[in-house]
Amino acid sequence: MPPGPGERVAVCPGTFDPITYGHLDVIERAARLFDRVVVSVAVQSGKQPLFSVEERVALARSACEHLANVEVDEFDGLVVEHARRHGACALVKGLRVVSDFEREMQMALMNRALAEEVPTLFLMSHADHAFLSSSLVKEVGSVGGDISRFVPPAVEQALRAKFGHTGA
Amino acid sequence: MPPGPGERVAVCPGTFDPITYGHLDVIERAARLFDRVVVSVAVQSGKQPLFSVEERVALARSACEHLANVEVDEFDGLVVEHARRHGACALVKGLRVVSDFEREMQMALMNRALAEEVPTLFLMSHADHAFLSSSLVKEVGSVGGDISRFVPPAVEQALRAKFGHTGA
Amino acid sequence: MPPGPGERVAVCPGTFDPITYGHLDVIERAARLFDRVVVSVAVQSGKQPLFSVEERVALARSACEHLANVEVDEFDGLVVEHARRHGACALVKGLRVVSDFEREMQMALMNRALAEEVPTLFLMSHADHAFLSSSLVKEVGSVGGDISRFVPPAVEQALRAKFGHTGA
Amino acid sequence: MPPGPGERVAVCPGTFDPITYGHLDVIERAARLFDRVVVSVAVQSGKQPLFSVEERVALARSACEHLANVEVDEFDGLVVEHARRHGACALVKGLRVVSDFEREMQMALMNRALAEEVPTLFLMSHADHAFLSSSLVKEVGSVGGDISRFVPPAVEQALRAKFGHTGA
Amino acid sequence: MPPGPGERVAVCPGTFDPITYGHLDVIERAARLFDRVVVSVAVQSGKQPLFSVEERVALARSACEHLANVEVDEFDGLVVEHARRHGACALVKGLRVVSDFEREMQMALMNRALAEEVPTLFLMSHADHAFLSSSLVKEVGSVGGDISRFVPPAVEQALRAKFGHTGA
Amino acid sequence: MPPGPGERVAVCPGTFDPITYGHLDVIERAARLFDRVVVSVAVQSGKQPLFSVEERVALARSACEHLANVEVDEFDGLVVEHARRHGACALVKGLRVVSDFEREMQMALMNRALAEEVPTLFLMSHADHAFLSSSLVKEVGSVGGDISRFVPPAVEQALRAKFGHTGA
Repeated sequence: MPPGPGERVAVCPGTFDPITYGHLDVIERAARLFDRVVVSVAVQSGKQPLFSVEERVALARSACEHLANVEVDEFDGLVVEHARRHGACALVKGLRVVSDFEREMQMALMNRALAEEVPTLFLMSHADHAFLSSSLVKEVGSVGGDISRFVPPAVEQALRAKFGHTGA
Repeated sequence: MPPGPGERVAVCPGTFDPITYGHLDVIERAARLFDRVVVSVAVQSGKQPLFSVEERVALARSACEHLANVEVDEFDGLVVEHARRHGACALVKGLRVVSDFEREMQMALMNRALAEEVPTLFLMSHADHAFLSSSLVKEVGSVGGDISRFVPPAVEQALRAKFGHTGA
Repeated sequence: MPPGPGERVAVCPGTFDPITYGHLDVIERAARLFDRVVVSVAVQSGKQPLFSVEERVALARSACEHLANVEVDEFDGLVVEHARRHGACALVKGLRVVSDFEREMQMALMNRALAEEVPTLFLMSHADHAFLSSSLVKEVGSVGGDISRFVPPAVEQALRAKFGHTGA
Repeated sequence: MPPGPGERVAVCPGTFDPITYGHLDVIERAARLFDRVVVSVAVQSGKQPLFSVEERVALARSACEHLANVEVDEFDGLVVEHARRHGACALVKGLRVVSDFEREMQMALMNRALAEEVPTLFLMSHADHAFLSSSLVKEVGSVGGDISRFVPPAVEQALRAKFGHTGA
Repeated sequence: MPPGPGERVAVCPGTFDPITYGHLDVIERAARLFDRVVVSVAVQSGKQPLFSVEERVALARSACEHLANVEVDEFDGLVVEHARRHGACALVKGLRVVSDFEREMQMALMNRALAEEVPTLFLMSHADHAFLSSSLVKEVGSVGGDISRFVPPAVEQALRAKFGHTGA
Repeated sequence: MPPGPGERVAVCPGTFDPITYGHLDVIERAARLFDRVVVSVAVQSGKQPLFSVEERVALARSACEHLANVEVDEFDGLVVEHARRHGACALVKGLRVVSDFEREMQMALMNRALAEEVPTLFLMSHADHAFLSSSLVKEVGSVGGDISRFVPPAVEQALRAKFGHTGA
């Protein structure tokens, strides 16, 4: 959907496998900076995802339903083409203190080379989420660790179901 | 000046001793993302600046005069207090691939602790400016190196004047 | 085994696929700092290990047999739960200058979130081992390179057997 | 004071200009790992300190008075010589996610070269303190920012006195 | 082929899956520093390569045919043994600002331990190539993005053929 | 002195305040790669040097006198201009695992922007020297620590003289 006149749209791309409170913190902040924020779930990802794209979209949608100007969709192909289709003025990514920072910068520079007009914005994650990643949450969840502080309840339930654990 | 209704204001803080094409790249991108951008020159800085705050403001103003929604001012004290006075919704900083990244993250986390409502946004600098810093430009300029690719003409002239070199 | 009264126990967790002189340097130093040190081999690991958990435990045990207060066991699930079962007061990890440092910090922060009472201690590896990792030793060993300076003799023999090389 | 028989002593060296909740978090954890912990304030430091060594010792002492097995002293010269005089089995340092990590490793390797028998232990700071440093606290305090979450009350008062601010 | 008398030979090892303008920039600079440069394509690589070793050698050869003192071969086993067979005085690697720098240093230190007499030289890539990697080019190419600025025409064509895209 | 026909000259620039075994390791390796190596001592440096430029040149000369194709000089101004005057084909710098790497890359990229034809080569320091820097040696020497493993005897003597220590 193209932006309305004067409307500023940002795209938050990611694998969201699954969405965590770290992602949500970034999305909530983006929602205060732009008129509309599209959380865009990548169909393909480097690694085999745990959740299908439909599941990842559904969990992201459920986590964001309190945010009136946030919508969730999926994309395949170049993220900058997807952003162009939305008429987005920016890509928004979280920046964790402990993160694959080099990879993020590499992507941002490549995306700038591919689409000069869509800059990548990095928002600092909260210090509390400095160590939080979908991968680590899956690792902890897979061995029955308590993940309730890291992901919304619906995601926690979905992870337990995947790993065959019943709630404590 | 508080923002008008629905107006989104961002503050780009820095020492700007002096402003470079790297800074300008970030400011130009910010000017497309926000209704108004305030380039805010820090009166105090960790190091003894080469240019007075008046000179640094004047050079920044001259470098930004082609940007209609950008203004330049100075500030003393906490940058988040300055941002609050402007009703700013964000602080915007450039993120060079080669930079004092740890220091930037430390400041961003401290500023988040001091003012939860004013997030720090990082914009990737162009790869061409990956190595560009005010300090390095001053180093090269001080020994008569060619700095015309790194700073606007007015800044180049001001640097030559400081170092007592005449134009080539 | 729970600690005796006043006894301080530390757990050194890892994949140890296989144990190297870099690991051993850290274990020997830990053995001087604590009353008892448990080298705990992770059954599961992100990557498919070259050696079975039984082989990894046996090689670690053989490498540590000169250390009276060091024992070797295996664990599955959360390392912090394993540490609690031992009544351990700390997790001990080596910190190589060249290492997956970000990953180590992420794990340490996650483990602190999961078990506040079991801190992670990092011990600097010797500069000579700055570049040493089980992965790199396997890479060099797989093409017949000399690995005798990097791993104990029993491990060297086991690697040669795996790769089908006979001793030089 | 040499350690009693079987007693394990650790030295926490630093400039402590001034002591923060980040330091205290590390000291408290060290106090649970060792029989006795000596917080050792460096007389000399690379930069000109804000507080005299007497003031820094007094503030550290006041911050640690609830910790029965922690004492505070000062040292001049090589930290490893100071640790030897205490019969210490380890130097303990905090490791912030955002910190002068390279400098810390360089010091740890140099200290290992100078005194093989006194290893440096790094303890991860709490994620909440990831951005906390004495320098940043002084910067914020010097312009009247609220530092009550970062330092103990006595330190806050001492900083206000130095900067000539009265309490809010 | 052993070097002629007084001839200095350097080996540029890599996976080259496929060769990019980033690699070529390094090879061209190396060709001005040494009498002969051998671009050596690794048969084995950590990841499953997209192109066969024959394809990777052919693409590298085509990209380097304008460089009179550059030849391309393949190698299996230890790179330092391969370098010794060529009588090489150095291994040459590109150093991107954004790169797997830790991995490169680890390899360089290991190679120094294995073959003291063959140092690893790092050449800075051009800032324009700071973000360029074979992996990223494959990612962008696989979804039909424009890669003509990143790889020579023959490589672009080969990538299109692999991914089943016809030219734009 | 311009290079003879077919002669390859490299410049090793630095502050050398004072020269250490880490520098010497890099210079010795460079001397095997190039026909002639010029160790060039920077007159000016960011920090106030401990030794005068004459002293630094003399100590470097004494440390390199066993290397027939190495000479020592001083330079003021842009290092790339100095390299051009020597007809140098490369600048050579050591790359310590623990070092001001970002600063080195920034300088290398700036120097490439200023003089495309003079590439910067980085040579890995030996793991034993990973932590060695002139600054740290001065710190340790200033408090009477044993620095004989870090610097040549003449440098050790010069440092003792500066700091007023007599030999042990």
